[in-house]
Amino acid sequence: MRHLKIFAGNSNVDFARKVAAAAGLELGHCDIGRFADGEVQVEIHESVRGCSVFVIQSTNPPVNENYMELFLIIDALKRASAAEITLVMPYYGYARQDRKVAPRAPISAKCLADLCMTAGANRLVVVDLHSSQIQGFFNGPVDHLFAIPSLARAWRENMGFGPQFICVSPDAGGVERARAFAKRIECPIAIVDKRRTGPNEAKAYHLIGDVVGKKAIILDDMIDTAGTLTQAVDSLLKNGAEQVFAIATHPVLSGPAITRIEESGVEKVWVTDTIPLKEAAKKSSKFTVVTVAPVVAEAIRRIYTYDSVSALFEDSI
Amino acid sequence: MRHLKIFAGNSNVDFARKVAAAAGLELGHCDIGRFADGEVQVEIHESVRGCSVFVIQSTNPPVNENYMELFLIIDALKRASAAEITLVMPYYGYARQDRKVAPRAPISAKCLADLCMTAGANRLVVVDLHSSQIQGFFNGPVDHLFAIPSLARAWRENMGFGPQFICVSPDAGGVERARAFAKRIECPIAIVDKRRTGPNEAKAYHLIGDVVGKKAIILDDMIDTAGTLTQAVDSLLKNGAEQVFAIATHPVLSGPAITRIEESGVEKVWVTDTIPLKEAAKKSSKFTVVTVAPVVAEAIRRIYTYDSVSALFEDSI
Amino acid sequence: MRHLKIFAGNSNVDFARKVAAAAGLELGHCDIGRFADGEVQVEIHESVRGCSVFVIQSTNPPVNENYMELFLIIDALKRASAAEITLVMPYYGYARQDRKVAPRAPISAKCLADLCMTAGANRLVVVDLHSSQIQGFFNGPVDHLFAIPSLARAWRENMGFGPQFICVSPDAGGVERARAFAKRIECPIAIVDKRRTGPNEAKAYHLIGDVVGKKAIILDDMIDTAGTLTQAVDSLLKNGAEQVFAIATHPVLSGPAITRIEESGVEKVWVTDTIPLKEAAKKSSKFTVVTVAPVVAEAIRRIYTYDSVSALFEDSI
Amino acid sequence: MRHLKIFAGNSNVDFARKVAAAAGLELGHCDIGRFADGEVQVEIHESVRGCSVFVIQSTNPPVNENYMELFLIIDALKRASAAEITLVMPYYGYARQDRKVAPRAPISAKCLADLCMTAGANRLVVVDLHSSQIQGFFNGPVDHLFAIPSLARAWRENMGFGPQFICVSPDAGGVERARAFAKRIECPIAIVDKRRTGPNEAKAYHLIGDVVGKKAIILDDMIDTAGTLTQAVDSLLKNGAEQVFAIATHPVLSGPAITRIEESGVEKVWVTDTIPLKEAAKKSSKFTVVTVAPVVAEAIRRIYTYDSVSALFEDSI
Amino acid sequence: MRHLKIFAGNSNVDFARKVAAAAGLELGHCDIGRFADGEVQVEIHESVRGCSVFVIQSTNPPVNENYMELFLIIDALKRASAAEITLVMPYYGYARQDRKVAPRAPISAKCLADLCMTAGANRLVVVDLHSSQIQGFFNGPVDHLFAIPSLARAWRENMGFGPQFICVSPDAGGVERARAFAKRIECPIAIVDKRRTGPNEAKAYHLIGDVVGKKAIILDDMIDTAGTLTQAVDSLLKNGAEQVFAIATHPVLSGPAITRIEESGVEKVWVTDTIPLKEAAKKSSKFTVVTVAPVVAEAIRRIYTYDSVSALFEDSI
Amino acid sequence: MRHLKIFAGNSNVDFARKVAAAAGLELGHCDIGRFADGEVQVEIHESVRGCSVFVIQSTNPPVNENYMELFLIIDALKRASAAEITLVMPYYGYARQDRKVAPRAPISAKCLADLCMTAGANRLVVVDLHSSQIQGFFNGPVDHLFAIPSLARAWRENMGFGPQFICVSPDAGGVERARAFAKRIECPIAIVDKRRTGPNEAKAYHLIGDVVGKKAIILDDMIDTAGTLTQAVDSLLKNGAEQVFAIATHPVLSGPAITRIEESGVEKVWVTDTIPLKEAAKKSSKFTVVTVAPVVAEAIRRIYTYDSVSALFEDSI
Repeated sequence: MRHLKIFAGNSNVDFARKVAAAAGLELGHCDIGRFADGEVQVEIHESVRGCSVFVIQSTNPPVNENYMELFLIIDALKRASAAEITLVMPYYGYARQDRKVAPRAPISAKCLADLCMTAGANRLVVVDLHSSQIQGFFNGPVDHLFAIPSLARAWRENMGFGPQFICVSPDAGGVERARAFAKRIECPIAIVDKRRTGPNEAKAYHLIGDVVGKKAIILDDMIDTAGTLTQAVDSLLKNGAEQVFAIATHPVLSGPAITRIEESGVEKVWVTDTIPLKEAAKKSSKFTVVTVAPVVAEAIRRIYTYDSVSALFEDSI
Repeated sequence: MRHLKIFAGNSNVDFARKVAAAAGLELGHCDIGRFADGEVQVEIHESVRGCSVFVIQSTNPPVNENYMELFLIIDALKRASAAEITLVMPYYGYARQDRKVAPRAPISAKCLADLCMTAGANRLVVVDLHSSQIQGFFNGPVDHLFAIPSLARAWRENMGFGPQFICVSPDAGGVERARAFAKRIECPIAIVDKRRTGPNEAKAYHLIGDVVGKKAIILDDMIDTAGTLTQAVDSLLKNGAEQVFAIATHPVLSGPAITRIEESGVEKVWVTDTIPLKEAAKKSSKFTVVTVAPVVAEAIRRIYTYDSVSALFEDSI
Repeated sequence: MRHLKIFAGNSNVDFARKVAAAAGLELGHCDIGRFADGEVQVEIHESVRGCSVFVIQSTNPPVNENYMELFLIIDALKRASAAEITLVMPYYGYARQDRKVAPRAPISAKCLADLCMTAGANRLVVVDLHSSQIQGFFNGPVDHLFAIPSLARAWRENMGFGPQFICVSPDAGGVERARAFAKRIECPIAIVDKRRTGPNEAKAYHLIGDVVGKKAIILDDMIDTAGTLTQAVDSLLKNGAEQVFAIATHPVLSGPAITRIEESGVEKVWVTDTIPLKEAAKKSSKFTVVTVAPVVAEAIRRIYTYDSVSALFEDSI
Repeated sequence: MRHLKIFAGNSNVDFARKVAAAAGLELGHCDIGRFADGEVQVEIHESVRGCSVFVIQSTNPPVNENYMELFLIIDALKRASAAEITLVMPYYGYARQDRKVAPRAPISAKCLADLCMTAGANRLVVVDLHSSQIQGFFNGPVDHLFAIPSLARAWRENMGFGPQFICVSPDAGGVERARAFAKRIECPIAIVDKRRTGPNEAKAYHLIGDVVGKKAIILDDMIDTAGTLTQAVDSLLKNGAEQVFAIATHPVLSGPAITRIEESGVEKVWVTDTIPLKEAAKKSSKFTVVTVAPVVAEAIRRIYTYDSVSALFEDSI
Repeated sequence: MRHLKIFAGNSNVDFARKVAAAAGLELGHCDIGRFADGEVQVEIHESVRGCSVFVIQSTNPPVNENYMELFLIIDALKRASAAEITLVMPYYGYARQDRKVAPRAPISAKCLADLCMTAGANRLVVVDLHSSQIQGFFNGPVDHLFAIPSLARAWRENMGFGPQFICVSPDAGGVERARAFAKRIECPIAIVDKRRTGPNEAKAYHLIGDVVGKKAIILDDMIDTAGTLTQAVDSLLKNGAEQVFAIATHPVLSGPAITRIEESGVEKVWVTDTIPLKEAAKKSSKFTVVTVAPVVAEAIRRIYTYDSVSALFEDSI
Repeated sequence: MRHLKIFAGNSNVDFARKVAAAAGLELGHCDIGRFADGEVQVEIHESVRGCSVFVIQSTNPPVNENYMELFLIIDALKRASAAEITLVMPYYGYARQDRKVAPRAPISAKCLADLCMTAGANRLVVVDLHSSQIQGFFNGPVDHLFAIPSLARAWRENMGFGPQFICVSPDAGGVERARAFAKRIECPIAIVDKRRTGPNEAKAYHLIGDVVGKKAIILDDMIDTAGTLTQAVDSLLKNGAEQVFAIATHPVLSGPAITRIEESGVEKVWVTDTIPLKEAAKKSSKFTVVTVAPVVAEAIRRIYTYDSVSALFEDSI
């Protein structure tokens, strides 16, 4: 059988190390640096000939640097005769640009999928894609992993479950995710519907569902600037929620996000390690990180041994 | 400038004729028949050399026949030296299969986009895609047209507008569409949330929003078997709606759909002509058809003359 | 070695089962159904990761349904990480449209080959292609299997051989096939030449060769509407043939075919099971089916174990 | 409108000049030479930016040199920003290798079509392809021109027409061509069927049709070594033909061809100028050349002005 | 004729404005910004349907940001129906990684060419490529412009010409460039050969040619960290040069470059504006910028009007 | 593991046999001939299904014949189901045409790389490419082997090493090669710089470095017409070299090359067997051939067993 090797770019090396360790391997020996002028310098220090190679690289900020590293690592592996290159992108940057949001906008998520394939990626592994249609942007196989089971398991163990909780979707489109978590912790759901009432008025937040006296848990796939999140927190508290928590797979935490969260009434924000937590967030008492490294490691093992990856989630989503 | 020619397959010839007429043209002369064994026979009776050719073909049922016609018409035009082939698919069949809904499922909407491009389509024009990410499934330009402005204009003229109405999304994912229509007829919105409360129980329909004494209008992109629709109608009536209407762009109307609608409490179902209305529906007093042929014709004209297509909808969505 | 799995679409399930059995396997567990609106629903119920997958699907009528099933089955297998997808198409629909027969005609046989490759087929196995140039329409390997050896073996065993027979080609282009069969049953050949003598006259059938007192066997690759066949039968009988038989690999049997054969003077029509025999033909006493399932099964085995497929036919064509 | 330019490789410069002249143009200024080591040296001496460029190059012997010239001329034109490159290949070399004639044979005619497209050809113009399926080997438009009308017109003017003639196909596959010519000079047809009667016996030539006292005209698409042709001539004379002529589009005339023709009983051999006539053949009194340059020139003009090319042959094949 | 539009990314907007002005146009209206998380946000504010669009974007540092901007701008233009997208990249980042410099290195210059083509670029315009083989990395047309004529013209006007000068190549590979400049200012050339004399020794600089009493001009395609340059300056001064100048097309000026130049004995460093000069360099008295905007503008005009671009340099290189 | 098979075209069969022998194999059984009209006839006489196939074919003169053989051999192997096709091209013809040397020139080296990939080559093995950027012309892996270590080892053994020698590059671009050889035989280097001093004057040869009393060794990648070489020899002798030798990997030896060498003052010309030595050169006492077959054989073995190929040269270049 072909040898299995795992390499990592610079976006999330700790996570990659955890994945490799969980798979019983060491990360492949390489140096992904920069030349004086900022060009990526890729040095792969061990042979990959005929190997089944997995490249772990989230494309969180600095997203453009991370994508460029990715393209050039893949090019190097392809030219070095890797038998198969699987791109493991726990966080898929540009996923929100998955359709034309305005005339003459790019569909960046598609463009980047095309570029990864052109560079030489044969297969993709992702965690909690912003929209599942992105799977169709790749021509090869995509293994879509879910963080909800890991998060729900940790929540039940640490926070309990039952009707004292209510899962809240911060917009109409995320109901599916709220429902999947609610099922696992056996509680009802609610929706915050954000809507502009008139052309010159601010958006208002309408709550659909009854949160009075409940511990509300806002579910989302990612936290970017945390604007939507903190307004949803306010709205829930005003509507009588006893406590408000937030759970999101990908902690992008751009710009004012951490300050906003710190200053908001949210109790705790649970995230995963698909993106390394920023230093400021590590210092905050509000953040809890649940690792998905074991899930990613198990997926890699199954892909390598040709076992079913979907079976990993059979009882869970 | 290159000549403009419009050809049509058999899926929706009346619509194609209306579009051609609105564009001031006649449909290109062709015969798309069948051989004795059911194979598609394509005969194009006029030269298309160097022409900018538009092929109008919805891929409604019989969806597989219609797609195969499309592939072979495009192949014929490509080999006959058409300069550019624009596929006008008012209804995009298989659009709901736009992601892997289960392990080892196809992503049919992507597969068919690939097949259309392989056959030789250079550009796509569609109306109200089931999900807008499908635009990313094509590598070439996609012009996404909207039926809501045409439907809303007709509604205001015939049914009026104002707070006596309420626009209802039949599921959480369709809120955007309900909101777009509500804005145009100046009324609030509500959501029907469909959810299974336990493993062995039936799905329940929860209404989010107050419909008491209102004329409720359910908005959807298509009506297939009308199961969701008629249950939403029931739910709205039970919750105190005075009257219930339904508006959907694409009248697929499979299997029991027409009977269900006939037997339901819905007052009227407004649809467009992206799919030809079935005979049984034409006989029913419940159906009203609003044409989108002028919008499609105008889009074709603008594509041909290199004018902005998005400007068509600038003030409207 | 990679696991071998065989899946079948709906076009010819009995044949697929026979092939699988002959290969010592069961058909892969899948459901290829239809949604209410006629869209193909593909459900693959077992993992195909890293497997060498063979998809058996003739594209006989309903040819368009069968091709669309094929594209979507292949898409599903490709996205489910099959290592290699071999398309086994015992009957290749649209094979007669292998060149431009008129200005602006499609080359459907090429277009469909392209579509199969785009969907994800890596390799093709076919039986008795209408024209062998179709092999060149695929970029990957094509294994072209022959039914003549199976048919001739069966004929010798059941009907004998020698100069009491004469093999007849129903047109000039099929002489090769008649000759291959004649060699095996040790008899001479003749040709029926069909030709219009003047612009407004009917086609006349000229016989080249002496059939007086012979048992004539008309050889063809397929029987579609049986018009050519039954006129050739008449012509042979008028020219003194004692008895007339017909042998064709693919029993398409469109429209009036079975009635025509029933009413004609042909003794027996031998066909293979690349296409399931229509019910009306099964009831007729004139049809005999010779199976080619063992040949297809052996070819699959050899492809899987990297043995020579051409060696299968070394002494026979 | 884009400028039209015509360039020629070295295979058939006289023909190219005649075509250009008939189109009212001069050949584009270029030098296609050889470096000392035999590598092709392409020098294009005038700008082709934005032009519609036609490259005239038959791929007759030295066929490999001619193909390599072609690839590199096309590459040069593509990189020099030609808007569209049409490859005019009056004789398509390797056309007989259009299917796998033996296990592990190449399909050279397809491979070369692929190579021409990779080099950058957008469109193909050919004369009398050996098999019309080769059109399907190209993904772009193919204009297939016919020499029969030009040849028949010349024959009627010089040799007359009517039942004193009989058109003879030298094998079963060429009946179509014989028939097309026979229609134009209003005479019957016959077939020479070549067949090995036993494993160790020589092939015998059987004549199908009555040639006694007739002026027989053998029709073929090309004359290569002239073995088949001269044996057909013998056979026809033995069977009572008064005189035997031969007409073939492409005078390949390899090896012993000219000597064989000289020594045979054929009266005259009519060919076209798709391939330059060899010096030895020019010296022989048996060869007559009918030009197809005007047909090719007219096709180029129509392609350039987007007129129908098929209309050129509407009344003639 | 198709409309001409010029858009610019953020890498070198001043240069783009100069080019547009020289072409008598304004830059297309667009905003290329960043979202809060650093993802590129592309907004094209005017229609490009059917236009011939030029995108001006050097890929100087921050090189990875600039490439990502480029991909997404091109994707947006392609999906917005631009007829043709020409990428004008005055400085081609990653050009030095044009071959495998070590085992398992990427060929980044090729990878990025592939990515630009995948994104949708049809044509490339570059200035002074690091190695001219990079032209072959693109499949489409490449217009390679030269800065030497502009630089030499400016030099002659300001500094004079004749044998008081000597052009020096800082390594063996750059002799061609030194020679081209020397020809224009009518002076001899010399070479600095850099070589490690033993495994543990530093590289030594050997001068080939006589520079005593001359005004030496070091010619290079770019100045990155200026290490090679300043050591060459030292070497020339030590070898008796009266004065030392440097001329380089692309002022990358990474890390210590400006300080090194300031501290070195070089009189003046002449560069072009393919890369915007860093603030620190602008403040230095040593830098002189010669614009190549008129050359790029003229090339764009010629590409647009289908005039020869190579003619621009006919008398000059 | 997949079987390993090695096939050879006609360009350099002796070399291929030596390689196969060194790898412990026999050459695959095939006949690569010509039909009467010069078309290549490929017959592969053993199964290659699922094999890892290496095709050894230098593309020395007759270069066009050799390339065409190559394309068709690869096509045959691809269609015969080879698992992987590695093209071993010890001498890469057209390598000097690796960039546009003049307006509207082809980039032949890139075009031919594209054609090889289109025909079906998955991987390339080459020896001493004329420019290493050509590696980037292939999308798949390229293993670039070096002849310098083999040549230097032989030289040390037969001719000795040390400062009595001086390695000379015949132009500025080849310094790298001279240096690599010099390092191995522990001697200094010199450069011959060829330059036209004025528009109507002949090129002059300037020597950079001191060769007085030395045994000068001119290093080059190939000898074509030997013009440059023999003028460099003259120049070195005039400048006081005691003896002059020449070493070049590829003995193209076109036109007057052998005569020139014979008549020149060069002592010995060492070449390798990547190209078969011409008969006239074999008869000359001046030529010595050093084989690189063991290096190529070892590279094939390592590619087949997935060992590092670069490690082969780790201590040597």
